[in-house]
Amino acid sequence: MAGNTFGKLFKLTTFGESHGEAIGGTIDGCPAGLELDLEAIQRDMDRRKPGQSSIVTQRKEPDEVKFLSGLFEGKTTGTPIGFIIKNTNQKTRDYGHIKDTYRPSHADYTYDQKYGIRDYRGGGRSSARETAVRVVAGAIAKQLISSVQINAFTSSVGDIKLSKKYKELDFGLTETNDVRCPDPATADKMIHRIKEIRKEGDTIGGTITCVAQNVPVGLGEPVFDKLHAELGKAMLSINAVKGFEYGSGFEGSRMKGSEHNDKFNADGSTQTNLSGGIQGGISNGMDIYFNVAFKPVATVMQKQETIDNQGNKVEMQGKGRHDPCVVPRAVPIVEAMTALVLADFVLLNKTSKI
Amino acid sequence: MAGNTFGKLFKLTTFGESHGEAIGGTIDGCPAGLELDLEAIQRDMDRRKPGQSSIVTQRKEPDEVKFLSGLFEGKTTGTPIGFIIKNTNQKTRDYGHIKDTYRPSHADYTYDQKYGIRDYRGGGRSSARETAVRVVAGAIAKQLISSVQINAFTSSVGDIKLSKKYKELDFGLTETNDVRCPDPATADKMIHRIKEIRKEGDTIGGTITCVAQNVPVGLGEPVFDKLHAELGKAMLSINAVKGFEYGSGFEGSRMKGSEHNDKFNADGSTQTNLSGGIQGGISNGMDIYFNVAFKPVATVMQKQETIDNQGNKVEMQGKGRHDPCVVPRAVPIVEAMTALVLADFVLLNKTSKI
Amino acid sequence: MAGNTFGKLFKLTTFGESHGEAIGGTIDGCPAGLELDLEAIQRDMDRRKPGQSSIVTQRKEPDEVKFLSGLFEGKTTGTPIGFIIKNTNQKTRDYGHIKDTYRPSHADYTYDQKYGIRDYRGGGRSSARETAVRVVAGAIAKQLISSVQINAFTSSVGDIKLSKKYKELDFGLTETNDVRCPDPATADKMIHRIKEIRKEGDTIGGTITCVAQNVPVGLGEPVFDKLHAELGKAMLSINAVKGFEYGSGFEGSRMKGSEHNDKFNADGSTQTNLSGGIQGGISNGMDIYFNVAFKPVATVMQKQETIDNQGNKVEMQGKGRHDPCVVPRAVPIVEAMTALVLADFVLLNKTSKI
Amino acid sequence: MAGNTFGKLFKLTTFGESHGEAIGGTIDGCPAGLELDLEAIQRDMDRRKPGQSSIVTQRKEPDEVKFLSGLFEGKTTGTPIGFIIKNTNQKTRDYGHIKDTYRPSHADYTYDQKYGIRDYRGGGRSSARETAVRVVAGAIAKQLISSVQINAFTSSVGDIKLSKKYKELDFGLTETNDVRCPDPATADKMIHRIKEIRKEGDTIGGTITCVAQNVPVGLGEPVFDKLHAELGKAMLSINAVKGFEYGSGFEGSRMKGSEHNDKFNADGSTQTNLSGGIQGGISNGMDIYFNVAFKPVATVMQKQETIDNQGNKVEMQGKGRHDPCVVPRAVPIVEAMTALVLADFVLLNKTSKI
Repeated sequence: MAGNTFGKLFKLTTFGESHGEAIGGTIDGCPAGLELDLEAIQRDMDRRKPGQSSIVTQRKEPDEVKFLSGLFEGKTTGTPIGFIIKNTNQKTRDYGHIKDTYRPSHADYTYDQKYGIRDYRGGGRSSARETAVRVVAGAIAKQLISSVQINAFTSSVGDIKLSKKYKELDFGLTETNDVRCPDPATADKMIHRIKEIRKEGDTIGGTITCVAQNVPVGLGEPVFDKLHAELGKAMLSINAVKGFEYGSGFEGSRMKGSEHNDKFNADGSTQTNLSGGIQGGISNGMDIYFNVAFKPVATVMQKQETIDNQGNKVEMQGKGRHDPCVVPRAVPIVEAMTALVLADFVLLNKTSKI
Repeated sequence: MAGNTFGKLFKLTTFGESHGEAIGGTIDGCPAGLELDLEAIQRDMDRRKPGQSSIVTQRKEPDEVKFLSGLFEGKTTGTPIGFIIKNTNQKTRDYGHIKDTYRPSHADYTYDQKYGIRDYRGGGRSSARETAVRVVAGAIAKQLISSVQINAFTSSVGDIKLSKKYKELDFGLTETNDVRCPDPATADKMIHRIKEIRKEGDTIGGTITCVAQNVPVGLGEPVFDKLHAELGKAMLSINAVKGFEYGSGFEGSRMKGSEHNDKFNADGSTQTNLSGGIQGGISNGMDIYFNVAFKPVATVMQKQETIDNQGNKVEMQGKGRHDPCVVPRAVPIVEAMTALVLADFVLLNKTSKI
Repeated sequence: MAGNTFGKLFKLTTFGESHGEAIGGTIDGCPAGLELDLEAIQRDMDRRKPGQSSIVTQRKEPDEVKFLSGLFEGKTTGTPIGFIIKNTNQKTRDYGHIKDTYRPSHADYTYDQKYGIRDYRGGGRSSARETAVRVVAGAIAKQLISSVQINAFTSSVGDIKLSKKYKELDFGLTETNDVRCPDPATADKMIHRIKEIRKEGDTIGGTITCVAQNVPVGLGEPVFDKLHAELGKAMLSINAVKGFEYGSGFEGSRMKGSEHNDKFNADGSTQTNLSGGIQGGISNGMDIYFNVAFKPVATVMQKQETIDNQGNKVEMQGKGRHDPCVVPRAVPIVEAMTALVLADFVLLNKTSKI
Repeated sequence: MAGNTFGKLFKLTTFGESHGEAIGGTIDGCPAGLELDLEAIQRDMDRRKPGQSSIVTQRKEPDEVKFLSGLFEGKTTGTPIGFIIKNTNQKTRDYGHIKDTYRPSHADYTYDQKYGIRDYRGGGRSSARETAVRVVAGAIAKQLISSVQINAFTSSVGDIKLSKKYKELDFGLTETNDVRCPDPATADKMIHRIKEIRKEGDTIGGTITCVAQNVPVGLGEPVFDKLHAELGKAMLSINAVKGFEYGSGFEGSRMKGSEHNDKFNADGSTQTNLSGGIQGGISNGMDIYFNVAFKPVATVMQKQETIDNQGNKVEMQGKGRHDPCVVPRAVPIVEAMTALVLADFVLLNKTSKI
């Protein structure tokens, strides 16, 4: 109940702090008989891992997954899949300066208040390192629902915005550049912007757009567990996320019903898809698409005034190796969480009708 | 698991279709000894009910709650609180025309596909009538966390936007006009716009902003059940919602870390509050504020082309009594869901420390 | 979380006190498209209801179920099934004498201690009246898994024990006598014993045996949610139950492995069935059978010394209309809980394999 | 939902097969600030581990727990406690003979049927090796509710039964003999019986009695999650358990109400305690006591006829190093599960009253 489990039938429970010996997870409820492509899992891990390019943190961690259970001769057995990822690159000395100090817009203060104790090293549990576990589980979920295509990509960095609609994009280009924007010209601008920002010792926010295609009709459980409600929760649970919108989103709130309604084709598909592939909380078979807003990373390499845990004013400066923009590395995380939500609803939906 | 339960310790389970005999709910986990103000519950119900003003649907339903259990001599007993609200104003004849027809951007098609059967009368379970039950439960949750102030209000209707920041507003004015915007001048414009739209036989979207003040520090359960993730899910589970953002929201994705970071005061409060009262998924005692985007109501009083359940093209026109804009009546629903989330986390937080 | 929900996918949430206006429940997760036999539901209700024979309480309550949602044209729709049963025969005056007094071996003391408040009328929530709701839900569960035969019967009353093995019995005889023992000669003795006990103003315990036949192979979710663990919890949650054993049960603890092991036939069935139809927590297709022990009803029509809520000694005598032996009326409750457990696992098992 | 999580607020999720690289678990919901005595945890592990005495399996495994998260400077932090126990003594060659063969009264057949695939090595997930993880979690739960004393002991082996009531016993003697019976004379007989049985290549069942003292009043959540219902489920989830009874248990079913009712003392305690410390599903502060029945271990060192997975008759003989009687090593497991149930309810009970 303390919040470290996600999903109802395809259920991921995670543990681990940034600077403990390992992080890890348990997937309970993965159906038996799924032949796992371990390399595909590692590929997604590599897309998330630090040190992968010049615009992300230069920390180096191999982020290799070790599976401890639930697999036999390459297949899932229906028993829980336990796995760990070692933390190999902890430099605890980097964090002595925050032991008693609350970094602005970090979770230091709230963890201390809530729990009365805090593993301050690298942000402890509040570190985005935890998302590596999600990527493992999401990669398995993707394989479970392999007919669905999930493609996330960077759609803005600061005020540099990808202006094309997702239908005009070639998702095959997403991985061809460091910022993971499938439009090469925009990608260049984004990368340039991130490099500028880093030079300033600053950080910048951005957005990720995710598209799920070939989704079966019928996923989602009204009324509280609507498909988009679970997607929203999934995205908002990712570090640094400030907003979520699907289909027409906030723009839809400025529209009229006569403009917004999606006209049906004879086969039940729709001519427009302002609904974003979901009606009444249930997938309708059209593309699901949504945007996720990320705030700028809170650790800046500039002097900041803050307080210590006694309320004294102190000055601090970010140390360590941090991302100037979290968005490029968050792309596989958004995909992973999408896959977890969809896989869970695929299993749940097996019980909708007699 | 089928999605009709919300919350973990303060747990609401709901049932009911638009045109059944009654809708209702059960609250399991409300602590014993809470003296319930039944009039306050009814007041929130009256803010949601149809027919309350000239800019909402003219259906008339008294929406009186009847409590069946869990109360004794005016107080909660710790046992489940069961309640029902009779459906008194069903005009089933209004819905014969949609028996075999899928209304555009409604849930008719997806319910049929998912369940193979559909109570088409008034939208059945997909009708926003279901939210009346949420308002009852939310009104009880408000009383449980009575030191917290929750104020939602209409912040835009179509492109008419309330330009003031929430700190400049007097929440006491929200209920003084039919659109529930605490700025009278903007409210007038919004009301005028809704009336125009209704005259056109059309509908319009809008946004609601909600502010929760005096929230205890420490609410929220990382990593998946972050406070804003549960708030987001709660809001996205409300009919017609397309987006959610908190604190700096989507605007925050365009900012730099040096601008976005909230400087601490000596007492742990912050000078700015772009974090929106939540850091690392845990409340920090500052105001929580967020925006919720509502699409325009799908039922328009204009002719629309659509399909029947055999895939034949048919023409249809909205009948019955519908809202030209859902936002004014959704204000108490947003508050109710906020209260449910906060009450649940208040209970959960009792177990954070030894 | 407060304990009024049973099941994971076929999920029953109940509410209601003995002397409130109504008791009721919500079933969330019943698959759509199930044609409900409402008369069969009422038949099970009639087997549980008070006043049905000369050896049970003479209270009269029609116990008619009113369905409020989830059904359309006779079939389940996949939306929650809400229902209520009115309390028609409350004589609150019967309970004034226990307002401030703790009846021995009742829940008066513990409810007061736990909640600080107690609806003392008829035992409030702790009354077995609550089980009427379970019988409704169980009767629906039976229809969902209609190929399974569930037969419970009275196997002992005090020291009068049915000596035949269940395989020697004709379950068709269970309903031919008031005590629900399928062996007429033993039934006569039991009935006689209960009448004697009632004449003494006393009560007596007993056991119920339940047999589930034609159960699909594969039900149960190791390791914590083993089939027999959930059956045990289900039975122990029924008022007055003190023990549960399945298959060889306590007798099995006195046996040797060479005696206890069930030899396989070529088709996977076994020659003996000391395992009771479950191996490793998963059904193996053989008959599931188990025993449930009920204590004697705590309300005796004799003078008892006890205490009031100030700790003063007081003398009290049972009033009202109570069962001298709970077992005959508990037979349909045991069946209902068995059906709920099996139906839930049937749904869960749909997700075991890809 | 697949059954590998136990508890609602103090929530244990486990993974691991007998012959995988490691087994492990995650505790989510342990309150922050608990100073852990790691040696006490290892002591309980040592009571469960194989090879500890001459009457248990001679396999040798150190069973050392490695904590990976959730602890900082010796205290719990409120974040999930992840831990693993390496499997060091797997002799996979011992199990080649059961690869395609179903051992009688084992879970081989049912796992194969349910999942279509089976890690046959050492029983895979169905092995009691899994309970080592429960003992770790239970040892932490014990420390969380340190004022409660939980004492389990062997109360029978086959037909050798401890005749003393638990009140006549000195629990300090339980660990002074290999069979964990606190009555030395009876212990000698039990040990002798187990050695005889082992010489025969056979196995024997037994019972464990557990007593929890100094339990706070108010634990348990009616109506489904009654304290004894959760204890029953917890015990029945342990490998080889066939029955559970608490308080007067099955004997209570043969009693009259006038004999069975517990008379109150002025302070709310009772003179007898046939209720077993629980009334209406809620602890009343008196001792909780219950019995758990274990069947004989299914692996006997004798020739048995059985079938392979094609339905062919085959002869097999137990190999490897197995327990002749599971009861001595199950004593700490019973205690662990008791502690998990009580700790969970202690946390839940913090939310019973306002």
